[in-house]
Amino acid sequence: MRTPRYGQNAKDFSQAGILAALPEADDLLVTAEAILTLDSEWQLYEPGYLAVRDGRISAVGPASEGGRRRASRRIDAGTSLLMPGFVNSHTHIAMAAFRGACEDAPDRLTRYIFPMEKHLVTPDLTYWSSLFCLCEMAKSGTTSFADMYYFEDEVAAATEAVGLRALLGETLVDQGSPDARDFSGGMDYAQGFIEAWKGHPLISPCLAPHAPYTVDARHLAEIAARAEDLDVNIMMHVAEMDFENERFAMASGSVLRYLDGIEGLLSSRLLAAHMLFVDDADIALTKQRGIRVAHCPASNAKSGRPICPAARFQTAGVPLGLATDGPLSGNGMDMEGILNLFPKLQKVRERNRALLPAHEALRAATLGGAEALGIGEETGSLEVGKKADFILVDLDDFNMRPVYDWYSTVVYAMRPHNVSSVFVEGNQVVDTSRMKRIDEKEVMAEMARLREDCSSYIEGLSRA
Amino acid sequence: MRTPRYGQNAKDFSQAGILAALPEADDLLVTAEAILTLDSEWQLYEPGYLAVRDGRISAVGPASEGGRRRASRRIDAGTSLLMPGFVNSHTHIAMAAFRGACEDAPDRLTRYIFPMEKHLVTPDLTYWSSLFCLCEMAKSGTTSFADMYYFEDEVAAATEAVGLRALLGETLVDQGSPDARDFSGGMDYAQGFIEAWKGHPLISPCLAPHAPYTVDARHLAEIAARAEDLDVNIMMHVAEMDFENERFAMASGSVLRYLDGIEGLLSSRLLAAHMLFVDDADIALTKQRGIRVAHCPASNAKSGRPICPAARFQTAGVPLGLATDGPLSGNGMDMEGILNLFPKLQKVRERNRALLPAHEALRAATLGGAEALGIGEETGSLEVGKKADFILVDLDDFNMRPVYDWYSTVVYAMRPHNVSSVFVEGNQVVDTSRMKRIDEKEVMAEMARLREDCSSYIEGLSRA
Repeated sequence: MRTPRYGQNAKDFSQAGILAALPEADDLLVTAEAILTLDSEWQLYEPGYLAVRDGRISAVGPASEGGRRRASRRIDAGTSLLMPGFVNSHTHIAMAAFRGACEDAPDRLTRYIFPMEKHLVTPDLTYWSSLFCLCEMAKSGTTSFADMYYFEDEVAAATEAVGLRALLGETLVDQGSPDARDFSGGMDYAQGFIEAWKGHPLISPCLAPHAPYTVDARHLAEIAARAEDLDVNIMMHVAEMDFENERFAMASGSVLRYLDGIEGLLSSRLLAAHMLFVDDADIALTKQRGIRVAHCPASNAKSGRPICPAARFQTAGVPLGLATDGPLSGNGMDMEGILNLFPKLQKVRERNRALLPAHEALRAATLGGAEALGIGEETGSLEVGKKADFILVDLDDFNMRPVYDWYSTVVYAMRPHNVSSVFVEGNQVVDTSRMKRIDEKEVMAEMARLREDCSSYIEGLSRA
Repeated sequence: MRTPRYGQNAKDFSQAGILAALPEADDLLVTAEAILTLDSEWQLYEPGYLAVRDGRISAVGPASEGGRRRASRRIDAGTSLLMPGFVNSHTHIAMAAFRGACEDAPDRLTRYIFPMEKHLVTPDLTYWSSLFCLCEMAKSGTTSFADMYYFEDEVAAATEAVGLRALLGETLVDQGSPDARDFSGGMDYAQGFIEAWKGHPLISPCLAPHAPYTVDARHLAEIAARAEDLDVNIMMHVAEMDFENERFAMASGSVLRYLDGIEGLLSSRLLAAHMLFVDDADIALTKQRGIRVAHCPASNAKSGRPICPAARFQTAGVPLGLATDGPLSGNGMDMEGILNLFPKLQKVRERNRALLPAHEALRAATLGGAEALGIGEETGSLEVGKKADFILVDLDDFNMRPVYDWYSTVVYAMRPHNVSSVFVEGNQVVDTSRMKRIDEKEVMAEMARLREDCSSYIEGLSRA
């Protein structure tokens, strides 16, 4: 086992461009059968090229124009699609060690998940479980994600080791948690976590109150004030649970209107996950307060919850990203499954097959997610000056042909294994479907060990 | 291009056992990390073995017992899961050549699909497009499927070439179709098709009236009588469309009750696809008449249709299988995506997370599908005496670990690429993710040609 050291690799990223660049040459130039830019004009190039300098996109356009450029490294991805990496806007990646345990139970959170976390979550589990989960995410094309959990320092260390971009929140609850005796202990941990990681080129630390039903109004106000002081984001589960909705709707009309009564909480710092029990007034309030939304269609459906009015949030102009949720909630951690499900559930909800055409669905999985994380200016689409966060998708497979409409192919036919290479800030994270900076075998072995450690407690729980 | 010849390979299958077997020895013995039998007692073996003789399962049990048996071929699949192959109960595989065209249009069937079929469907397109689609299906673990289309002879030839098991129906409509000038021409084609393929060890031909809104009552009665004469199944789209429901519910109460007025149609010969616009009386009638149901959750959702009350059909004791629908409707042709979606949509529909636990969901994708095809006695579960239709799933990937509950892993976390080998009637169809009997490159090249042939017409249509 390795002891993580925070921040030691940060330098590698910021200097990558300087080391590799020749004067006036690109660090990397990739040509591909097609490039989807996801820019505001939906430009796509068939074939196309993308050039990278100092971690940013220095040019993108038709392949014929790329030939004249000088570059330190060239990749000819002639039968690949090049597109922005996926942005997963809400996860709990350290829960990978529990995936598949205690399924289909009506009161799963309180009966199984909270006890499991109390007994089993350690820094060691958090680190290795996160690293394991990040391999699945990176290999299926995710370049940025948002996460909230305990021992978030360990999640950050694993994220840095893999090389993905992330917004990471230390989870705060009123009662004791795996990493804090009480609320104020959690706040101390969070403060230290934020100080350790703030300014990292890929990782943004933030505060993550668990939910309106686990953090009281006084504590939520304290968190809002602290976020202001530290100039960080806030992440929270909002309007996800039936019992939560019943409790707050009674007195305040809705969960969101209850939260609006808490000083400073509803602001553009907030990334709210789920947002299931919302009415039209809540959607308008979400827009008015500048809140961003992480939509988790798979985990919500698996729990038998109502379908989030995601398309209505979009129509109202609310930044909306897609998300897997944690591996205990949504199981598969690839964004392909979420992207495929998202328009289907919205079409069912609104009984309208023309709603959310494929290109708009894909926007939510890329630029929409970046906007939800508050980094839409930096990533989520392929535009000159933005960070070079992109993926190559191998088209040489039966599920990927024929192509009449690239967006339809990506949204409805693409599967995780089609992703072959992944780049974050111009650095290669996945190369021909293998992790580039990580020993896959070691990570698999560590997960086998964690499973062994957890299984007797989990088996006892499920028998109880 | 190759001219298909029907039936020439049929002998290979029926004699495979005889050729390979030593006296009292198994033809094949596979050991695996786990075997899910899907039998009535949900037996699973960790680790387990499965033995095959003459195309049938000769034994299945704990691995420790397999060591004593003699076998011509042994496979040690130590980090694989062995389970029944998937059964896809409703497809139009020849439509792969059109996948992704003209998406998200409100009146897609009449505005785009019917004209496309009229102009572009030929025997050549049907054969190669089917072969292409079968590669995606086989490689993702489908061992049996039901299909209805035009030139179904070509679909059968492609199916035989690949080596899957199928129930194949020649599509019949009142008006002219790609392969018949009028209804009676279609019936003549169907009669010839059935005579050519009846008795094939893997392929069961049948009659497939398109839908209640494209085949009138007189013709439906004629089809029912012919099915009786020929002793074959009937496949039909039922209660799928809004306009269909409006038309028949007005006069008869429901689409199904309208069909019940047609002599001989609603019987245990019928496999009805979709069944969206049904009430409790229709569900009871479905059970009473012995009808089987093919549930297509992905294509229905993508079209913004109501969610089929699939769990209610199951509760009523109706045989229910899962299906992708055609590649133009559901796009991805892997059953993993459908299996993953099925319980989610049912849980959402009934607002009940405990509904359809993972093992029951998996049953619908395997044995339930076999029952829907009328072959539940022969395949769909791993039991001694049944056909050896099974798959190996590689567990050595990040999405497949850890395992606490095999059913949850298969239903919610498994993806198409995890399937490594596929066996139908003991014959290997896919070997370490490659088609065994098919030249993949040739099939890919033929699809590129078809796409080239179709694109100008399809582009013209979508601009119109």
